[in-house]
Amino acid sequence: MKTYAQMTPEERRAEYDALQTAFQDLKAKGLSLNMARGKPGKAQLDLVSDIFGLMQKPEDYISDGIDVRNYGEMAGLPAAKRLFADILGCQPEQVFVGGNASLQLMFDTISKAYTHGLLHSPRPWCKEEKVKWLCPAPGYDRHFKITEFFGFELITIPMTETGPDMDAVEEAVKDPAVKGIWCVPKYSNPDGIIYSADTIRRFARLNAAAPDFLIMWDNAYCIHEFEGDYVEFPDILALCAEAGHPDMVFEFASTSKVTLPGAGVSCFACSKANMAHMETLLTPQVISFDKVNQQRHVLYLQNKAHTLELMKKHAAIMGPKFRAVVDALDREIAPLDIASWKRPKGGYFVSLNAMPGTAKRTLALCKEAGVTMTSAGATFPYGKDPQDSNIRIAPSLPPVEELEQAIQVFCLCLKLAALEKLGAV
Amino acid sequence: MKTYAQMTPEERRAEYDALQTAFQDLKAKGLSLNMARGKPGKAQLDLVSDIFGLMQKPEDYISDGIDVRNYGEMAGLPAAKRLFADILGCQPEQVFVGGNASLQLMFDTISKAYTHGLLHSPRPWCKEEKVKWLCPAPGYDRHFKITEFFGFELITIPMTETGPDMDAVEEAVKDPAVKGIWCVPKYSNPDGIIYSADTIRRFARLNAAAPDFLIMWDNAYCIHEFEGDYVEFPDILALCAEAGHPDMVFEFASTSKVTLPGAGVSCFACSKANMAHMETLLTPQVISFDKVNQQRHVLYLQNKAHTLELMKKHAAIMGPKFRAVVDALDREIAPLDIASWKRPKGGYFVSLNAMPGTAKRTLALCKEAGVTMTSAGATFPYGKDPQDSNIRIAPSLPPVEELEQAIQVFCLCLKLAALEKLGAV
Repeated sequence: MKTYAQMTPEERRAEYDALQTAFQDLKAKGLSLNMARGKPGKAQLDLVSDIFGLMQKPEDYISDGIDVRNYGEMAGLPAAKRLFADILGCQPEQVFVGGNASLQLMFDTISKAYTHGLLHSPRPWCKEEKVKWLCPAPGYDRHFKITEFFGFELITIPMTETGPDMDAVEEAVKDPAVKGIWCVPKYSNPDGIIYSADTIRRFARLNAAAPDFLIMWDNAYCIHEFEGDYVEFPDILALCAEAGHPDMVFEFASTSKVTLPGAGVSCFACSKANMAHMETLLTPQVISFDKVNQQRHVLYLQNKAHTLELMKKHAAIMGPKFRAVVDALDREIAPLDIASWKRPKGGYFVSLNAMPGTAKRTLALCKEAGVTMTSAGATFPYGKDPQDSNIRIAPSLPPVEELEQAIQVFCLCLKLAALEKLGAV
Repeated sequence: MKTYAQMTPEERRAEYDALQTAFQDLKAKGLSLNMARGKPGKAQLDLVSDIFGLMQKPEDYISDGIDVRNYGEMAGLPAAKRLFADILGCQPEQVFVGGNASLQLMFDTISKAYTHGLLHSPRPWCKEEKVKWLCPAPGYDRHFKITEFFGFELITIPMTETGPDMDAVEEAVKDPAVKGIWCVPKYSNPDGIIYSADTIRRFARLNAAAPDFLIMWDNAYCIHEFEGDYVEFPDILALCAEAGHPDMVFEFASTSKVTLPGAGVSCFACSKANMAHMETLLTPQVISFDKVNQQRHVLYLQNKAHTLELMKKHAAIMGPKFRAVVDALDREIAPLDIASWKRPKGGYFVSLNAMPGTAKRTLALCKEAGVTMTSAGATFPYGKDPQDSNIRIAPSLPPVEELEQAIQVFCLCLKLAALEKLGAV
């Protein structure tokens, strides 16, 4: 079989005409399918809804002597701190347990740096002439948006097979205006890669010019394998401390994709000194987060081992969805040599690089045919992919039957866009 | 019976000596009692803990077609908006339903004004030379702290029997640097007064020099009568709109003292234009608040009428506590003419004005005898009561037996401090 590039112009035109007919047929079906966001599907929600049966007995309301129903304990229940410390491999006293969303904790960390400054900030960031921020890309659009919201200059750092390009990072942090970097170290969004031991070591040893340089270590998929066993992952807090930079990193995690999206529990973890500083900054804002929900999660998840058992059940739902996507790509697209993609073993996304200049067109065609995808460019700072190539596929929400249909549409649109680019029209 | 002022120096000295003996006896008891914060007591928590039995049936997970367990609906469930609109007397589309704490929503509103500006702000408040803020005092310490945290200059506005001194407010807002005011319009913290219709009308008609002047209308005790029937209260949003200032006010409320402190649901209400602006500013920060807990509250509280029935049950617990406090003051302190206080019918506090210059000393004595109270001065900007007179009593947490003991200690300390002031030592 010939790749599209190997075809003669006539062959491409014939292929295009055939695909156009198929495309018109698909459009006529009036599909409405969604592969846009990393939303768990209904089967995953149902899997964990027995969590609502907890908190019925009076003894459940008490945790380490604390009535979880009343005000207080701003930094979270000690038992919830222990649970997250177990999962992340850090110390309970390094953990602050928050509300339902780690995104809010991340936003807050940046917001506090902006209005008041971090522990080692010479001044609040709003008083700085310019703040620059490193964005490994492709990356998570909501991360980039937070730093864009506060007017920082976003600097793209290329992603490699082993994590962000550390040569580029080490060079960039020589600029004292560079205040931090976004990281999704395990099953990175969207590439699904795990940062290598060497990458992580280089992060811990970063000698940044800014005294308040901040690694935003969003460990969103820390236990989110959908294929194979749990993969051990180092504790970045300990590594930074060993390297003499205990205050350089804030780690984030949540149960949004362990129990319930939007009704889970989130946390951040940081050095003791950072914790004291953040608690001072959070005191005017927070009396306490929802400790009833924290307790509900402590009772439900118990510990890391028990939580990993639950993740196996999520994997049983997620695995087939990812295989459906990647298998279709292998079958339909690989022989044509018009795109490349990763085959992740965890996380929530498949990252695909289409032929440069065809991502937007592919997704416009998908939309025409009733398939909603993450916008092209979303995985890059300011929503602009200079290559117009990267596409994030989120297979988690639709049931497998719908997903198979959606990925068929996607493959068709990818082909049409490639053929147009190659001059078939 | 003579008041302390009417006594001869010898009589005062004899009284002081007798009270000192009683005080030493009390100290020897090693009490540990708390009237510091507006925390509901255990009986109130138990009253509402049947809320945890909800959300068991699959149909409970769906509200207006939305699966409450998944991401989305940043501004809250439509059903939760309807519930709060019913309670506050505004329109559902004016309501944003948040997480477990209205304090966080209040902090966020001010924080957004600081970092990005409100709808009519010429610039973010962090770019203003100076921001001044009006603080009716005595008032709520956590309010004052938020505006202090952002470096605003706090200006004290005296409280009257009918609400903040509106002559002072109308004069103050002529200064364009004055950007807003804190209000607790019903059962004000700590005075427990309800703003009069005239005060509310004058608020709605305020002609502030600052185009982005902001009334922070914290309706924390909107349905929190503990004596007598529910008192109707006007909708400030409608009044501001009628007066031509639809965007001048944000109203706040929560179920922290309806269902569970720290595990309830909060909201803000504002004009449609403000809502659009705030949603833009909240989008980088929030995917969604905890809609499962919102739905739990919709199922539990149902509507205003049903919620008011629940508040009657809270009143049955709260009423006797407030009566124990005020009756003791009437009996022990009134005849001596060394303090004055209000007799509130709702809210969470009794506000007492001790003889000027004796509040701190009274509370230091209380502490010595094992009774924790809100710090003296806490009800004033910067924690400084110029008269050293106002004391906030919070009777909600201790059971009545403990409370009666605590108020006895308090009365004794009040007497000792007054006698010291009058030169008995």
